[in-house]
Parts: sequence; C-alpha cells; structure tokens
Amino acid sequence: MAKTKPARRPPKSSAAAAARDAAPAPVIILVEPQLGENIGMTARAMLNNALTELRLVKPVHGWPNEKAVNPSSGAEVVLDGVKVFDTTAEAVADLSHVYATTARNRDMTKRVMTPRAAVAEMRNVIAADGRPGVLFGREAWGLNNDDVALADCLLSVPLNPNFQSLNLAQAVLLVGYEWYQSGNETPGIDDRMPGNTRPADKQELVGMFEHLEEELDACGFLRPPEKRPTMVQNIRNMFQRANMTEQEVRTFRGIISGLVRKHERKSEN
Amino acid sequence: MAKTKPARRPPKSSAAAAARDAAPAPVIILVEPQLGENIGMTARAMLNNALTELRLVKPVHGWPNEKAVNPSSGAEVVLDGVKVFDTTAEAVADLSHVYATTARNRDMTKRVMTPRAAVAEMRNVIAADGRPGVLFGREAWGLNNDDVALADCLLSVPLNPNFQSLNLAQAVLLVGYEWYQSGNETPGIDDRMPGNTRPADKQELVGMFEHLEEELDACGFLRPPEKRPTMVQNIRNMFQRANMTEQEVRTFRGIISGLVRKHERKSEN
Repeated sequence: MAKTKPARRPPKSSAAAAARDAAPAPVIILVEPQLGENIGMTARAMLNNALTELRLVKPVHGWPNEKAVNPSSGAEVVLDGVKVFDTTAEAVADLSHVYATTARNRDMTKRVMTPRAAVAEMRNVIAADGRPGVLFGREAWGLNNDDVALADCLLSVPLNPNFQSLNLAQAVLLVGYEWYQSGNETPGIDDRMPGNTRPADKQELVGMFEHLEEELDACGFLRPPEKRPTMVQNIRNMFQRANMTEQEVRTFRGIISGLVRKHERKSEN
Repeated sequence: MAKTKPARRPPKSSAAAAARDAAPAPVIILVEPQLGENIGMTARAMLNNALTELRLVKPVHGWPNEKAVNPSSGAEVVLDGVKVFDTTAEAVADLSHVYATTARNRDMTKRVMTPRAAVAEMRNVIAADGRPGVLFGREAWGLNNDDVALADCLLSVPLNPNFQSLNLAQAVLLVGYEWYQSGNETPGIDDRMPGNTRPADKQELVGMFEHLEEELDACGFLRPPEKRPTMVQNIRNMFQRANMTEQEVRTFRGIISGLVRKHERKSEN
C-alpha cells in the first residue's frame, strides 16, 4: 500500500501549475535510497524535466526526510507527492513497462537500451495507454537482481567506460533530460533577433557594401585595379557571414562615416 | 597567463589513460565559481563524459581548493590539470568558438543553440582545426553581458519553463553528456544475449509450439475444434513476442513436461 505524505506547505504556484498541466510521464522509483539530500536533488532534477511522480521503496532514513527539502531547491510539488512502498514489486504493481537503470553489465537475457531510445519507447507506451516507470538503485550498489527481474529491460547511460559512476540524482537528471527533450520542440539553432530589430535585407547590405567600397576607392585601398574585383568579393563574403541586423548595418555605415571624417579632419590639419 | 597547479597525487591510472587517449574535445570554463564542491562535481561530470580540460576564471576561494577533491569522486586527472585565469578574455584567448551557457533570455542579437545542436557544431569546429569551449557562469547569477559578448553564441538547455534552475555541475553534466553521446556509437537498443546462449531459431521455436499444442490437445484445452486454429495462432504470437533464447526454449519444454507429469501423477492418485 502506498502511504501518501501530507502536504508540508503550499507548493510554489508555477511549479504546481506545471504539475497539474503535466501530460502523462514516466514514474521515477528510487529503491532504498540512503541520503535525504539525494532524494531532494532527484526531485529537483525531475521537476527540471517536468517529471512529478516519485516513489520510494524502503528509504533508509524513512519518509518524510527534512534533509530532502533544501536540496530540492523548491521542488516541493514532487516531494509532497512522494509515495512510499515496502517492496519494489508493490512500487511497480500498476505500471506496464519498467526500465531498470544499471551501469553494470549483467549476465541476463534482457534488452539493454540507452536513455534516448528508452524515452522514445516510453512515449509509445503512453500513447498505447501503458504506464512506464524507471527504477534507480541504492547509492552504494544499485539494483539487485530481484529488482531487475521485475523490469522489462535495462537502461544504461553510455559514458566514459573508465569513469562511469554517476551520482543518483545525476542519473535521474540524464533520464529525465532525455524524456523532456523527446517531447520538446525548441529549435536546435535559433537565430531570432530581439524584438526591436530584424535581419538586414540584401538591399540594405548592398547599400552598405557600396558605401564602404566608395570610400575604399577614395582612399586608394582597392588597388591595383586588376585585384579590385577579388578584394571586393572577399570583403562582401566576410560581411555576409556576419548575419547583420538592420540596426547593425546602420551602425556600421556610421563607423565608415566616422572613420572617413577623422581622416578628413587629419588631412585638414 | 595560465597558472598550472602541480599534480597533488598520481591520478588513477584508468582515468589518466582515458585523458591521454582523449580525442580533441571542448574546454569547460567556469567563471568565478564560488563553491569548491561545485568545481569537484564539475570535474566528475566532465570525466564521466571524457572531457578533461577545465579552466577557472577567478575562483572565489582561490585554487587549489581541497573542498573540490571528495566531490570529484576520483576525477583527479581533471582537477590536477585545472588552469586559472584572471579574466574571461584570457581564458578563451586560444579558443576559436565559444558557447555561453545561459538560462535567461538576453536581449542580444546572438544565435541560441540547444546543447544537442551545439555539440554537433563543435565536432565540425574540431574537424576544421578549431578549438571550442563552453562558458558557465557564477552559481548565483550566471554570466554577465561582458562574458557573453566574448561568445559566438548562447547555449540554452530546454527545460521545464516553470522550473529551469540547474546546479552548476548539472549544467556541465548535460552539455558533457550531449558531447559524449554525439561521439558514441552504443546502439539505442541492444538485444545481445549473454555469451552462453543465443536467440532460439524458428525450428526450435516451432518444435516447442508443437510440443505444447500436442499436450494441449491431449488435455482438451484446444476446443472446440473450429476455434483451434485461432487459439494456436494467438498462443504462437504471444511466444514469438518473448524473443526466447535457445536455453529458454529448452526450459519451457521442461516446464510443459513437468506440468504434464504432475497432471499424470494426480490422475494416478
């Protein structure tokens, strides 16, 4: 039976809103976690990635644990919803697909998945009305083989083979991160300009080029004449790469004029 | 000028080997980090992902900092190689491409990239003999705009918009994780069997099906006759999904025989 902890304080409203609005997502299950700090950091890593359902199997120092509060950095909405179970079997009883995280290579006939492949499968599971969950083991030695036998497959993060050990909350963070990325549509590259400007159009850019080349002709920079076409092309290519805004084109035309005036003043002296 | 800290102790040999063999990789730069613990956890997160070059700009409590050692969990090879700089400009002086991590939306005309897109670009940069580096800001308020003006683009991790705050080492972990994944060829799904077995072939599976169906005919389970074909198909489909090994086929044939014998013994009583 799950024992639900009563709310300690009203959760932060924005985080609570996020939890309320959350689409179905995998459940995170910590098996016999030892340190309250790790439970708190796990809650933080979960909420960073819009995961809110945390279950604990026999936490070593019981639950609730005040040491979890500060490390959660305000993820009370996760801590307040924690459910505690006596066995791993009870903690996964209502789930349809269970992933067991492990760094060790186990001598078992069980599919091993990366987090990236696993979260794609979890989205399919949820679309088919299943409920996925991810098991994380004890800080000191991970999951035991009885826990793993309750899982559909192993989840293993590809890391430096000479230095694989992750802190518990970091392991949760990486799985949660992949979950969030798999449902997020942030463009990989965003070249948007701030609201008060826009990319320069080619007419503005060519106006700037001609302004610059006129002054460079006047000061004798674009010589000898047979090299002028190549020099002009190279200069234009350099400025094309800069992806200038309309504002930056005006600024640069001001720079040209400023440098010319300084030169003219010098000439007058 | 970079001040290189002398090695404190011989680094662990496997980690040292990893560092020696490391292919070119991005440099991690922490600007005015406050807590030694965060520097240690950063070193751990870096080595997890085969990153070894860490630079510090004016660490608040100086360097070396003994408080970094335990949280690094053995990543001495990173701590021992730390270089300290007086300014961000000096710390990035030898780099060709600099990415500034930020959660805040800055009113700047600068490309914003996700870590996943950025690491792909970093691999291109390295292939073209460039040197990429990633700037991480102060724990309390991140990078200031002068730091950001030294960068080619912003790096922003897509996270729950209502709960975005990451610990410094966790931010390094996510960027490092994407770096490592982008160069790693672990299959997303690995169905390999342990060394002592192999997937059952169809002949073995059909042999098992026929064994089962013979016993089910004998006990009268596959009735009425007009439903037998559909029942057999459903049972065969269920076992096909299980991707059984040759060993598991033999085990299951033993189970059939065992159940039949129990039934026969019962009948004798």
